[in-house]
Amino acid sequence: MNNYFDLNSIFDIIGTIAFAISGALFGAKKNMDVLGVLVLGIVTALGGGFIRDLVLGITPPNMFQNSTNAIIATLSSLLVFLILYIKTDKIDKKLINHLSKIMTISDTIGLASFTITGIATAISVGHEEKFLLVFVGTVTGVGGGAIRDVLSGSVPFIFREQIYAGACILGSFVFLIVRHFVPTDISLIICFLTVLIVRLIAVKKNLNLPKITD
Amino acid sequence: MNNYFDLNSIFDIIGTIAFAISGALFGAKKNMDVLGVLVLGIVTALGGGFIRDLVLGITPPNMFQNSTNAIIATLSSLLVFLILYIKTDKIDKKLINHLSKIMTISDTIGLASFTITGIATAISVGHEEKFLLVFVGTVTGVGGGAIRDVLSGSVPFIFREQIYAGACILGSFVFLIVRHFVPTDISLIICFLTVLIVRLIAVKKNLNLPKITD
Amino acid sequence: MNNYFDLNSIFDIIGTIAFAISGALFGAKKNMDVLGVLVLGIVTALGGGFIRDLVLGITPPNMFQNSTNAIIATLSSLLVFLILYIKTDKIDKKLINHLSKIMTISDTIGLASFTITGIATAISVGHEEKFLLVFVGTVTGVGGGAIRDVLSGSVPFIFREQIYAGACILGSFVFLIVRHFVPTDISLIICFLTVLIVRLIAVKKNLNLPKITD
Repeated sequence: MNNYFDLNSIFDIIGTIAFAISGALFGAKKNMDVLGVLVLGIVTALGGGFIRDLVLGITPPNMFQNSTNAIIATLSSLLVFLILYIKTDKIDKKLINHLSKIMTISDTIGLASFTITGIATAISVGHEEKFLLVFVGTVTGVGGGAIRDVLSGSVPFIFREQIYAGACILGSFVFLIVRHFVPTDISLIICFLTVLIVRLIAVKKNLNLPKITD
Repeated sequence: MNNYFDLNSIFDIIGTIAFAISGALFGAKKNMDVLGVLVLGIVTALGGGFIRDLVLGITPPNMFQNSTNAIIATLSSLLVFLILYIKTDKIDKKLINHLSKIMTISDTIGLASFTITGIATAISVGHEEKFLLVFVGTVTGVGGGAIRDVLSGSVPFIFREQIYAGACILGSFVFLIVRHFVPTDISLIICFLTVLIVRLIAVKKNLNLPKITD
Repeated sequence: MNNYFDLNSIFDIIGTIAFAISGALFGAKKNMDVLGVLVLGIVTALGGGFIRDLVLGITPPNMFQNSTNAIIATLSSLLVFLILYIKTDKIDKKLINHLSKIMTISDTIGLASFTITGIATAISVGHEEKFLLVFVGTVTGVGGGAIRDVLSGSVPFIFREQIYAGACILGSFVFLIVRHFVPTDISLIICFLTVLIVRLIAVKKNLNLPKITD
């Protein structure tokens, strides 16, 4: 049992909570009912890992073999709903503004956590193909949010927002490089920090990638 | 060969016809051409089982090992198209209104049928994990309709409509409970009736789950 | 090693380049940034094969076992971006018009190529079920474009455009028939030409399938 499996579990739980909160807040902002809020929270939290497992041929996906994450996602989403439901008469512009900030931060923590659980899961079942590791890291990171957006009829975040999938791809490449020099678990933490910092700087500075202008 | 396998086949056929009709009517209402109507009918009828099989690691999915359902879905959708195509000059407000009602009823029968085929299929390949059974029941029930909605550019039904996925989730939980007391096939029928009745009452009474209001 | 495996590889590369160009142009027309353009190009090029492999139970999908196609798709998309980025001040109505034509032709070549790689891949892993071959041919052909459209918030091409999935379905049926008379590799080429010609005639003549009019 290598260290990075424990690391994997810890970041899996952090990512699950962060994405469940982000998904539930998204549903609440769209005026969904309690079940819509729960489903969006759960889908955002578990969707990336679900796609990852289908790609790696892990069926049924891990989330069914160990329902801890499903329970965590459900409780986190329910908590978000209850807090907003109770405080609903006190919601004003300022709170909405705060919600957006909390959502961005949650989302970024989820993104960084799931990028490394994606890579670590692929390695744990014996895969070393570089393109696969980058893909699985990125899709585990952005997959839940993409499903959330498609289901709720929005153009996915990955195309609208500042450097999003780009942070996962960069972090995955950094992992592949530093891994030659330091142990796998340290490399994963460096990958996590890369995704987190790149994304937060991009949001803060409103950085965007070059595009074709008319 | 337990009874619930036969039951599974019967409800599979009922659900396939019901969802094919509902999908084809949806395509017709969106002014799609004959192929669009067929594809929407087939996708709605087979989509839930397709996702279920990928989740359970049944590849290629059942629908390809036994093409009865595919043929039934194609013929049902074609029939819907032909009836509407021939009667097109007589379509008026009243007919459209009737169509919506037929679509809701078809859809509900499909929802209830596929919830139990989802659960029964998972059990038949040896799964007993409670969260998996609820997930597979629900995703088989709502999956086809969700793919239909996403493909045709609508916000999925599950988020717009009265208690929809909620009926499947409730029915699946009822199954898990009554199963301790009665045989599996009876439990599946109770699950079917629960989904059907809960959804129909919700539509009739226009019941909705609590949501966060501004 | 039968001939049609080599054929499969050749058409796989042609289809990958054609769909990557079509996807990247689509992203550029939607004013996406460089990463958005790359992701849309790659998803359009690899998406159909990805779904095909999940359906056939080939995990991880072929694209990860041999990353040639991923590299080709990335480079083709990048090239499209760079050409447009450099020429951006010279873009006028006429160029946009040309782009649409190039996109349609690329897309059609990709459609025809992937229809036969879908069928050939299924046969190569031992499947002969007729419905499966038609499904896998069609989904490999239209899958990438459908994912591209859903991700970018458009109603999928298959529902909006002249005879699109219809060309794949027809080509697949032609394959199933001619295969009784000529070798598999010749049948695949006939299938390719059928899809190509049917789709191009449909676009040229603006042919559409019958629909229900009000």
